[in-house]
Amino acid sequence: MTKLFNDPSSFMEDMLDGFLDANARYVVGVPGGVVRATETPQGKAAVVVGGGSGHYPAFCGVVGRGFADGAVVGNIFTSPSADDAASVARAADNGGGVLLTTGNYAGDVMNFGLAVQKLRSEGIDARYLAVTDDIASAPKDQIAKRRGIAGDFTVFRCASAAADSGYDMNGVERVGIAANDATRTLGVAFDGCTMPGAADPLFTVAQGTMDLGLGIHGEPGVSSHAMPTASELAELLVDGVLAEKPAGSGNRIAVILNGLGRTKYEELFVVWSGAAARLRDAGYTIVDPEVGELVTSLDMAGCSLTVMWLDDELEQLWTSPADTPAYRKGIVDADAGQRRSTDAVAAVDDDTLPESDESSRDCGTFVAASLKALAERMADAEDELGRIDAVAGDGDHGRGMVKGTAAGSKAADEAVSRRAGAGSVLAAAGSAWAAKAGGTSGVLWGAALTAIGNRLGNNGTPDDRAVAEALRAGYDALTSLGGAALGDKTMLDAFDPFVGAIEKSVAGGNEWRTAWTDAAVVARTAADDTAELRPRVGRARPLAEKSVGTPDAGAISLAMCVATVAELFTTRGLRS
Amino acid sequence: MTKLFNDPSSFMEDMLDGFLDANARYVVGVPGGVVRATETPQGKAAVVVGGGSGHYPAFCGVVGRGFADGAVVGNIFTSPSADDAASVARAADNGGGVLLTTGNYAGDVMNFGLAVQKLRSEGIDARYLAVTDDIASAPKDQIAKRRGIAGDFTVFRCASAAADSGYDMNGVERVGIAANDATRTLGVAFDGCTMPGAADPLFTVAQGTMDLGLGIHGEPGVSSHAMPTASELAELLVDGVLAEKPAGSGNRIAVILNGLGRTKYEELFVVWSGAAARLRDAGYTIVDPEVGELVTSLDMAGCSLTVMWLDDELEQLWTSPADTPAYRKGIVDADAGQRRSTDAVAAVDDDTLPESDESSRDCGTFVAASLKALAERMADAEDELGRIDAVAGDGDHGRGMVKGTAAGSKAADEAVSRRAGAGSVLAAAGSAWAAKAGGTSGVLWGAALTAIGNRLGNNGTPDDRAVAEALRAGYDALTSLGGAALGDKTMLDAFDPFVGAIEKSVAGGNEWRTAWTDAAVVARTAADDTAELRPRVGRARPLAEKSVGTPDAGAISLAMCVATVAELFTTRGLRS
Repeated sequence: MTKLFNDPSSFMEDMLDGFLDANARYVVGVPGGVVRATETPQGKAAVVVGGGSGHYPAFCGVVGRGFADGAVVGNIFTSPSADDAASVARAADNGGGVLLTTGNYAGDVMNFGLAVQKLRSEGIDARYLAVTDDIASAPKDQIAKRRGIAGDFTVFRCASAAADSGYDMNGVERVGIAANDATRTLGVAFDGCTMPGAADPLFTVAQGTMDLGLGIHGEPGVSSHAMPTASELAELLVDGVLAEKPAGSGNRIAVILNGLGRTKYEELFVVWSGAAARLRDAGYTIVDPEVGELVTSLDMAGCSLTVMWLDDELEQLWTSPADTPAYRKGIVDADAGQRRSTDAVAAVDDDTLPESDESSRDCGTFVAASLKALAERMADAEDELGRIDAVAGDGDHGRGMVKGTAAGSKAADEAVSRRAGAGSVLAAAGSAWAAKAGGTSGVLWGAALTAIGNRLGNNGTPDDRAVAEALRAGYDALTSLGGAALGDKTMLDAFDPFVGAIEKSVAGGNEWRTAWTDAAVVARTAADDTAELRPRVGRARPLAEKSVGTPDAGAISLAMCVATVAELFTTRGLRS
Repeated sequence: MTKLFNDPSSFMEDMLDGFLDANARYVVGVPGGVVRATETPQGKAAVVVGGGSGHYPAFCGVVGRGFADGAVVGNIFTSPSADDAASVARAADNGGGVLLTTGNYAGDVMNFGLAVQKLRSEGIDARYLAVTDDIASAPKDQIAKRRGIAGDFTVFRCASAAADSGYDMNGVERVGIAANDATRTLGVAFDGCTMPGAADPLFTVAQGTMDLGLGIHGEPGVSSHAMPTASELAELLVDGVLAEKPAGSGNRIAVILNGLGRTKYEELFVVWSGAAARLRDAGYTIVDPEVGELVTSLDMAGCSLTVMWLDDELEQLWTSPADTPAYRKGIVDADAGQRRSTDAVAAVDDDTLPESDESSRDCGTFVAASLKALAERMADAEDELGRIDAVAGDGDHGRGMVKGTAAGSKAADEAVSRRAGAGSVLAAAGSAWAAKAGGTSGVLWGAALTAIGNRLGNNGTPDDRAVAEALRAGYDALTSLGGAALGDKTMLDAFDPFVGAIEKSVAGGNEWRTAWTDAAVVARTAADDTAELRPRVGRARPLAEKSVGTPDAGAISLAMCVATVAELFTTRGLRS
């Protein structure tokens, strides 16, 4: 288990401090992550990698010459926010555009997708690529739903090497897509890992057994097996990956045998001995294999085999030099490059508030009070939400809600002190929530609050119908992010019935607070009912049969939040 | 725990196969270990590192340009044999001599010491250096008794870099000694590791606690503590190491924060953040720190802090380029060097047998039968001996006795088939035992059998007195190896009473087989009585208070062996 930490809630920040200190010759910190410590040529295309932390050397350990220009660093196993991704990309950009690339997880896809939109609106040629190498996470005919695991390494490496070789953005993107299309990974797990400060592991694997295809955050696998010998495992992994040989590929391959943290080098070499023989027996030539820890999951026990089928271009990129904190190869240009100045890094958002009137500012004050109540409620509920989320997800939902509501409450208070109207208070809270919480729920809550605020505006007291319409706008903002649909066992499955009940009640003549209070009960029932749903097979939650019987943590936390606001109506005497 | 293996008894060989395959551009296998795959300049001084395996990247992972010329690879946590050490050194030597260097453990000191003698007798300028960085393993006034842990890395590195920079053997040895004198390490453990195929961990650390100074094979620590925060641990390690600042040293230091296997990169960075700050507060400038896994113990949880106080020479060597499987730094000369031819590697021992007569050959046949019986007895007793050894040592004694007796029996049979006399059969068995068992007990048993054989010779049937004298010669061979004295809780404490009882009985007129049978009972009692002994504080078994109450595994196995031979007298009707 993870034993060394100071305050678990600042683990990522503390880790990043130490990483930057120990690797000052390679990297410097910027808001949201790290970039190379040395200048790159003007006009060079940049590659920014990222995702949650807990996977070292991925992702900050591969920033440097021949590899990534920057890494966005989220909390443990949690997507960084769109703001963080945009911030690192801005710092990495040197006029040639930026490819942002992550494993294919819902939170990363949304946050990095939003960052790309933001960067483009600023005139930066930003692109996004999600890696989909994990053959166990979705069937062959749904490759786009597969998640990214150790194949992140081959894809990030080839795209980055292309950028360092002078390819322009179109070329870098083309190489990234080609590398992803050519990369397949199959992994196994023998034991789970523990989040810093947690008493129990994130997931467990039954003693004496092995889970085939288990995700690196404990997402369910394909099947359970008796613990094999090293040779049997080598056979299983090689045969599994080779069965997914991309059409038209040749017989030269890059291979990674990756340890997840507790499965050590000596064991990996024993497995490699069998895997290399079997790959050669199948007619393959292995080019520069890597056997070691490249994409870990804290101290999870397990390993994975990645094969990237090579053409001449990918082979040249795969074998090219690199010089980074955790991955070094061959001879990089002797010129160490000029130290980058980071004084100018970090763009600040527009700081002016729109005009507001007195009544809207009163509403804003109530919004800020609501967010304070939400922050308190989520702090109490963190462990409960984490436990629920651990069944189907990675157990980080409670932490995300605590971080998000705390940041939202702080931002709302600041906005109120600057005489913001309701719309601005909600938008400020939404923006801070998304920035600090990271993950999937962070970006969704942030988008919803911002959309609600934009609809309410900053003048006048909204009437019952306006409140209902604003809530529906918030809901629509979520669905437009494209991560989920009704019935997918997400917060939408509580949010939609909640908004529907308010719309119906208000249409029937009820005051919105009364409608809200009744609808909060509807939301709770709907949230509990998500226990019976089967999550959609997809990148975030593949084949999550085991979650049937447990409600969705995002739906439950939404129900908790709307109920908390309803309590405020009573305690503040606001209900008519 | 260690989960992936085929046959646990061939784990090291399987591991080495995979390691060599994956790193063919750096290393090639030779009998006993690995050497660089590329030629070195004629006359270059060579550095050969080594010790038991299970510590990757140490030791085979650091063979390459700027680092070691070769690594001797023992079984997991077991010293390689003298033959293995000599074999790798011969392959690494290019006319400039060889520095053999290991951590300071009894088995390594003996086996590498014997190898140095052998190499010198062949005209190779061989030297030996034992690293003594672990400040917890013996008090300041007994520095020579301290064991080597992660400080192996700084010492091996500086000596190797010196050799690659063109220093001659005197210079390389001087640098090695200077680096060792300047290096201090303090380590902690949170949880034990498991040998391949073992059901239980080699040792355990109580839940929620930390052992300060615990050895990397579970040797007892200095004290037990409640689990600290990362900052508290950083403080403890920094203050502990700085308190041992070598006299006259300056304020520039190389630092390693080393993870032992399960304590992961993220945790190490959190600790580093605190450690770096405290070192700088103490006025130090940190030069090229390393934070990661450099000297591991399978999947043991724990970490250590190593400081090497730098002068100009050590700093230049520490920061120089290196290019090895697991450690790469800076820019190594672009010329990759010519591939080494290994066809000529591996010297074969002299193959001619001395003359023998019929009666000595009959004795030789009985010796071979005895060794066969010992091999069977040890196969049965492996687990029992391992459990006893795990209390005070590293649990490898049973495995070592099985490998040693099996190899000795095979070699004795071969010698008999070639019409060898008793002396040659014993010498052949002793040589094979030491070569295959490795570790401390292997070299001791090998030396004893060889000495007994040399004394008995190959002509005639030895009389009672000659047998007693030969046994005493075997005992003397052990004590001359210098590893232990009577009362140190080793096999000597059973061997001496056994030989003494035979001497007395034979002097009283008894036939030697009768004397042996009675003395076997004395040996068993003496072996059991070792339970009350307290092992000498020293490099192999520092402060092993916890072993009081458990007998010494080496003494017990010796008693088992002599009893097994006594049974043969009866079953073969040999007693008069």
